[in-house]
Amino acid sequence: MNPDSTPQGVVAGSIPLFAGHPSFDLLPVDALQRVIAAAWQGRGVARFLNYGDEQGSPQLIEFLVERLNRREDLDISRENLMIIGGSTGGVGMITQRLTAPGDAILVDAPSYRDALHIFRDHRLEMRAAPIDDGGIIVAELERNLVELAAKGKTPRFYYVVPNFQNPSGIVMAVERRRDVIELSRQYGFAIVEDDVYSDLRFEGALPPSFYELANGENVFRLGTFSKTLAPGLRIGWLIASEERITGFVESGLLRMGGGANPFSAAVVADYCRSGAWEKHVHWLRGQYRRRRDIALAALESCMPPRVEWTRPAGGYFIWLRLPPSAPVDALEACAKEQGVYFASGKGFFVNPEDGAHHLRLSFSFLPVAELQAGVEILGKLIARMTG
Amino acid sequence: MNPDSTPQGVVAGSIPLFAGHPSFDLLPVDALQRVIAAAWQGRGVARFLNYGDEQGSPQLIEFLVERLNRREDLDISRENLMIIGGSTGGVGMITQRLTAPGDAILVDAPSYRDALHIFRDHRLEMRAAPIDDGGIIVAELERNLVELAAKGKTPRFYYVVPNFQNPSGIVMAVERRRDVIELSRQYGFAIVEDDVYSDLRFEGALPPSFYELANGENVFRLGTFSKTLAPGLRIGWLIASEERITGFVESGLLRMGGGANPFSAAVVADYCRSGAWEKHVHWLRGQYRRRRDIALAALESCMPPRVEWTRPAGGYFIWLRLPPSAPVDALEACAKEQGVYFASGKGFFVNPEDGAHHLRLSFSFLPVAELQAGVEILGKLIARMTG
Repeated sequence: MNPDSTPQGVVAGSIPLFAGHPSFDLLPVDALQRVIAAAWQGRGVARFLNYGDEQGSPQLIEFLVERLNRREDLDISRENLMIIGGSTGGVGMITQRLTAPGDAILVDAPSYRDALHIFRDHRLEMRAAPIDDGGIIVAELERNLVELAAKGKTPRFYYVVPNFQNPSGIVMAVERRRDVIELSRQYGFAIVEDDVYSDLRFEGALPPSFYELANGENVFRLGTFSKTLAPGLRIGWLIASEERITGFVESGLLRMGGGANPFSAAVVADYCRSGAWEKHVHWLRGQYRRRRDIALAALESCMPPRVEWTRPAGGYFIWLRLPPSAPVDALEACAKEQGVYFASGKGFFVNPEDGAHHLRLSFSFLPVAELQAGVEILGKLIARMTG
Repeated sequence: MNPDSTPQGVVAGSIPLFAGHPSFDLLPVDALQRVIAAAWQGRGVARFLNYGDEQGSPQLIEFLVERLNRREDLDISRENLMIIGGSTGGVGMITQRLTAPGDAILVDAPSYRDALHIFRDHRLEMRAAPIDDGGIIVAELERNLVELAAKGKTPRFYYVVPNFQNPSGIVMAVERRRDVIELSRQYGFAIVEDDVYSDLRFEGALPPSFYELANGENVFRLGTFSKTLAPGLRIGWLIASEERITGFVESGLLRMGGGANPFSAAVVADYCRSGAWEKHVHWLRGQYRRRRDIALAALESCMPPRVEWTRPAGGYFIWLRLPPSAPVDALEACAKEQGVYFASGKGFFVNPEDGAHHLRLSFSFLPVAELQAGVEILGKLIARMTG
């Protein structure tokens, strides 16, 4: 979407409850300006205006390796990490290198809509297993594996947003993670862990990552600055085995173009190394927690009975289940008339009909008054439908 | 490569004649600083720090559409153009969307090494046809088409750097372009025109683009700011039919990540709209022409008989043919001992042995004294080998 205007397809003055963007007022505009001005004054900026290292900014790699090892029970080296163009760049690269059209992969139901879109573009067979409050239901995942094995197929990978999942906000429980790793070893599929929200934890603790639990074996873990700094910089990172990172770094795309966005990456590296990022993330947690609380309070006061929703402990999203008499298509049509837009549940499922009574609300983007107004309008519409 | 140090695998103090980078002293560092500072002062920069339009910066699209229509016999609209992450981003995207492993494509012999690398990563069958001073030899291209047709195969596209080709510096003649378009219609393959050097024309005129000659039909034309502004910004553009652009813009990768590098793209847009780019390109042409002249003079005075080379009218590269008694592998080993590195011809061919007596020199990156010293050393080594 063009931040100058309202999101695509949305009428001006409307309430886009779907937008999974950081709020404009939460972007550290002034701090970034200071970093850039200092870079130009202090040293040769030409270094980040030319082609960069295929692996990405060495300064940013060093910063991230140190941070990850310090904060988690990890012992990664710089050979385990590369800079990518947002977690999107990683999902694209991994999918391109690990799959061919017709290959099978495993996903959650629901799963992140735009990732499903990428997998669809790659003409993959997506096998989905439902999630509950603890993440994927392992027996259902295994049922898919057995069915695929009967057809002589091994899925290439399991794609998951393990923490504060998009769209549900759910965190996958540690036992589930262990079970999935066990299955990944048994059946020989990789795990793609799109861990973009873990820095936005409002309360409680997170389980160890798949990467940590599997000792890095056959796990691709993605991170990003899009949710905690600025999406427009398009910078993220990938952690994987040294062998995998080397393979990606030596790919034609990186040989041709050099590493991910050297200019943005240098700005991000300088920003992080100044200590500003840790402080900003800490502040952001409070900001997004407040928005989450306001959204949950609005749901509590506005939603009629039999509407259910998740209570995420972090991230950007709340996931609603509508009563049988309120299909999401009908709600979407009515809401649109009142200028309220949300993400229909149907986009988050391999089989869209599975989402026919679900929707995703984002509390990251809108001013709180609009967030409250949007929820109130939805509540009234659902009440009318369920009468 | 990391611009802080010498290119990868190269000993400090050596002469990297292979580096297809702009010279550091030709990057408009100060002008970019002014643009960025003005952006922060003049208006909300948050607009380019959030997710961007999938199609890319509207301001930059508008600028490029106007420029292309004004300078060429084109009548494209903004629906025909999208912003991409350098021409690399376009080659990757087009290859991903148009091919599946095992598909055939057509390339020149020699062709751009890193593009071949991308096609190899996609497990494509590459069919190469030799070039002469006018570009691809059409009869040889047709021979490949006939052979593929006999196997029931239609190549997906023909990839070409039409102007000041990498590695040869050759411009494809207009008749050849017309013949290739005719074949593309007859056999049903697309043309991917990686037109990254056309702004660096030192003399003479360029033929119309494939895109213009084919009225845009089944042609993907790529452009970039990497050669005429700064590679580290990672911004380029793609021109194609409205239908194709729409298809790409609606892809999962762009839905997930938003348009190419909104932050860099905004900087580039402001820089271009200030009028600075046209002046810079004009100045660059003189700078690179001077380097080309010095490189050609050095070759003239240092190379023993029976070494042949191209005399490019633009771009970054000169292509050398070595005498039979001077295979490039042996020359490479001797040159390395003296700290001189060049791009072996072998990397530019689908069948590496076809390049066993070729090498590419780049005159874009090195200070002229080093350029001259490198050519002198190569000349002596070849003289000794052919002596």
